[in-house]
Amino acid sequence: MLPGKAPRESRVEMTELVLPSDANPLGTIFGGRVMQWIDIAAGIAAARHARRPAVTASMDALTFHWPIRVGEVVVLEARVLAAFRTSMEIGVTVHSEAQSTGLRKLCTSAFLTFVALDEQGKPSQVPPIVPETKEEQEAFAEAHQRRALRLGAR
Amino acid sequence: MLPGKAPRESRVEMTELVLPSDANPLGTIFGGRVMQWIDIAAGIAAARHARRPAVTASMDALTFHWPIRVGEVVVLEARVLAAFRTSMEIGVTVHSEAQSTGLRKLCTSAFLTFVALDEQGKPSQVPPIVPETKEEQEAFAEAHQRRALRLGAR
Amino acid sequence: MLPGKAPRESRVEMTELVLPSDANPLGTIFGGRVMQWIDIAAGIAAARHARRPAVTASMDALTFHWPIRVGEVVVLEARVLAAFRTSMEIGVTVHSEAQSTGLRKLCTSAFLTFVALDEQGKPSQVPPIVPETKEEQEAFAEAHQRRALRLGAR
Amino acid sequence: MLPGKAPRESRVEMTELVLPSDANPLGTIFGGRVMQWIDIAAGIAAARHARRPAVTASMDALTFHWPIRVGEVVVLEARVLAAFRTSMEIGVTVHSEAQSTGLRKLCTSAFLTFVALDEQGKPSQVPPIVPETKEEQEAFAEAHQRRALRLGAR
Amino acid sequence: MLPGKAPRESRVEMTELVLPSDANPLGTIFGGRVMQWIDIAAGIAAARHARRPAVTASMDALTFHWPIRVGEVVVLEARVLAAFRTSMEIGVTVHSEAQSTGLRKLCTSAFLTFVALDEQGKPSQVPPIVPETKEEQEAFAEAHQRRALRLGAR
Amino acid sequence: MLPGKAPRESRVEMTELVLPSDANPLGTIFGGRVMQWIDIAAGIAAARHARRPAVTASMDALTFHWPIRVGEVVVLEARVLAAFRTSMEIGVTVHSEAQSTGLRKLCTSAFLTFVALDEQGKPSQVPPIVPETKEEQEAFAEAHQRRALRLGAR
Repeated sequence: MLPGKAPRESRVEMTELVLPSDANPLGTIFGGRVMQWIDIAAGIAAARHARRPAVTASMDALTFHWPIRVGEVVVLEARVLAAFRTSMEIGVTVHSEAQSTGLRKLCTSAFLTFVALDEQGKPSQVPPIVPETKEEQEAFAEAHQRRALRLGAR
Repeated sequence: MLPGKAPRESRVEMTELVLPSDANPLGTIFGGRVMQWIDIAAGIAAARHARRPAVTASMDALTFHWPIRVGEVVVLEARVLAAFRTSMEIGVTVHSEAQSTGLRKLCTSAFLTFVALDEQGKPSQVPPIVPETKEEQEAFAEAHQRRALRLGAR
Repeated sequence: MLPGKAPRESRVEMTELVLPSDANPLGTIFGGRVMQWIDIAAGIAAARHARRPAVTASMDALTFHWPIRVGEVVVLEARVLAAFRTSMEIGVTVHSEAQSTGLRKLCTSAFLTFVALDEQGKPSQVPPIVPETKEEQEAFAEAHQRRALRLGAR
Repeated sequence: MLPGKAPRESRVEMTELVLPSDANPLGTIFGGRVMQWIDIAAGIAAARHARRPAVTASMDALTFHWPIRVGEVVVLEARVLAAFRTSMEIGVTVHSEAQSTGLRKLCTSAFLTFVALDEQGKPSQVPPIVPETKEEQEAFAEAHQRRALRLGAR
Repeated sequence: MLPGKAPRESRVEMTELVLPSDANPLGTIFGGRVMQWIDIAAGIAAARHARRPAVTASMDALTFHWPIRVGEVVVLEARVLAAFRTSMEIGVTVHSEAQSTGLRKLCTSAFLTFVALDEQGKPSQVPPIVPETKEEQEAFAEAHQRRALRLGAR
Repeated sequence: MLPGKAPRESRVEMTELVLPSDANPLGTIFGGRVMQWIDIAAGIAAARHARRPAVTASMDALTFHWPIRVGEVVVLEARVLAAFRTSMEIGVTVHSEAQSTGLRKLCTSAFLTFVALDEQGKPSQVPPIVPETKEEQEAFAEAHQRRALRLGAR
């Protein structure tokens, strides 16, 4: 078995500026653009944990709490919450930041599963996750519950 | 109240070619790129139904059944399944098509909710949906159940 | 000889939303952006018919009847009109749709020829086209006339 | 009437490097990408001549003589060949250049018409063209013949 | 005078995945793509410090120590090192991270100056910087020396 | 030793239209976008001189004298100023051109060094540069002085 790794070792912070080309004519960002950023941030965290390429297997339900506007800064944070045999659950939060005040709002958050792949593109074993903080231990337990729900839903 | 409209009046078919810039170094499309296409197809269907701009409010869980590869063609189909006061549920299916055989596989499907906006960016009333076929009537009923679950989950 | 195929088997429908990044500062789409979409739609239809990659050999004259604006939806439809030994003629229509009324206008149409390629990048035989409707039979005959004109013009 | 201008005053030279994202999986550039570059080069020449924004009205038939490959350099040259009341005909040549030898090949050429627009988006008068060289005088005469053909074809 | 702010209040961390479309045919990232990321990261830090839009005024010399390859992750960190009346100096470091080992290498670093703008696009006063750590105090002093050199060089 | 080449043999002229997607919400182009164009123009000139792929090694300090706005045309000119064993110094000028007047302003200029690479990605010898005009001879001498400064600064 591969040696375990802590969530902080693969944590990703991504900062993006919302450009006019990311937004509809109302000046509001496309939801799909945010989903694309979420997927990239999660994918980098997964690949950092696995030290291998990793591909998106699923994304749980996602709600947009606030619109994000052109000129705002978006900060994404991705963490590996749990690792199974060849897959991982990644949690991503998305905050927007207004330029004139610096205030940050949680716009959305998402849970994704990624599968690590070997050179032939087959699923490949990943290191166990070793939660360190109380918050990480809770997230670890909840990720296992979500996995049970997902497997049950198929 | 606005006059009702049938799902076929706002149905969207979108065809995309998977380019190297859509894919990771393994030649597999990024999940986030597919999510972006799903959001655009759903948004066009929503705006067609509402005759107004519409923004993404949420997306239900989504699973990728098959990887999609560079050079394949992706066909998305979006339909308005149900309309509430100012929001709509849109169903999107994503098929990939191998060039050499023409075989199509269902790669993923998604349910999204969109909110129609008026000129001030406030939620705006949308026409009722009038399901015509048996399949549309079932999708209509199921969309109401999903909405109840979503409202309950908050 | 390869077995013949009907035009409907390779028909492509493509739907695009006009974004600010597709348009000049007047809010009108760049002609070249539309040409790019036409080429992609035609190329997918050609590759579907040939079950092989296909590259653009030529495009006939093209006129823009109406400007297309940011926020409008563009619907492209591509059909294989005729198949020669290793090349195909594809017809593409481009309609724009105003969001607030849903009215569609024919903005432009184009005839393109594509050549199917084998693994070495050499021209490769394509299936004959079997027109089914009266409209397809007329388009088939006209495509042969255009081809004669093109060969004569060289 | 506006004072006349020579073709050299609005001549455009554009140099582009063909990237993997411009090409199909065979490593050959998409025809539509070249058309997009042709449209941009022609549009800059038209706007330089008119000192106003100008939009694409039509493009004459276009044939690709040679495939263009990833890693090659593409050189476009656009010239205003003739100016009518509110429209202009622009000629564009497209050469590709192989990196290892520097040899240039003419890949395609195109004639486009652009219309100059005023602040309200209405057609706006453009300066006459004053051909200076023998080649420019011939191109000027031929552009008038093509215009007559185009008007006849409607 | 505006109240001072510490460098940590505007620090930016940006994570990017190197895609095939960012790289030349050798699989090495374009220098200009890295410069673009550097400029965006620095611009976000400057705007965070000033709480206003800020535009690039200059960039000091920049050397690439190592090539960055497709599939690697790039981590940029931007900090406001010093603030003058209406301008700021920003320091940016760029590390690449190999997926299979997680090893990070410093690829390049840069010093940029940005100017804050008011609603009319005129230079606008920015808060003083208040260095907190020894390292920040040294960077603050060095930034003033670089500014003296830049002003002398004009 | 490879035969020498004159600067005019590898000179590059690049013309770009500033689109909304190149600019911040103030309508001013991102500095990083200009840097990206500078790098591409210089890279094409370097590869033309070397007849091989060439990668960016460094860029000297760069100052923006004027903002460039959406709708303006940008003209870049790149010249190989000097060639060393496996590297070259390239000078690039960037002018913007206002559409309504045609007036050109020098916005910025830059000196970059590029290294030519062989098939294994190792530095590869480049032809000597043979300055022809007085201006080219001066630029050649100055490039050698800058190189001495750069080597001294390490």
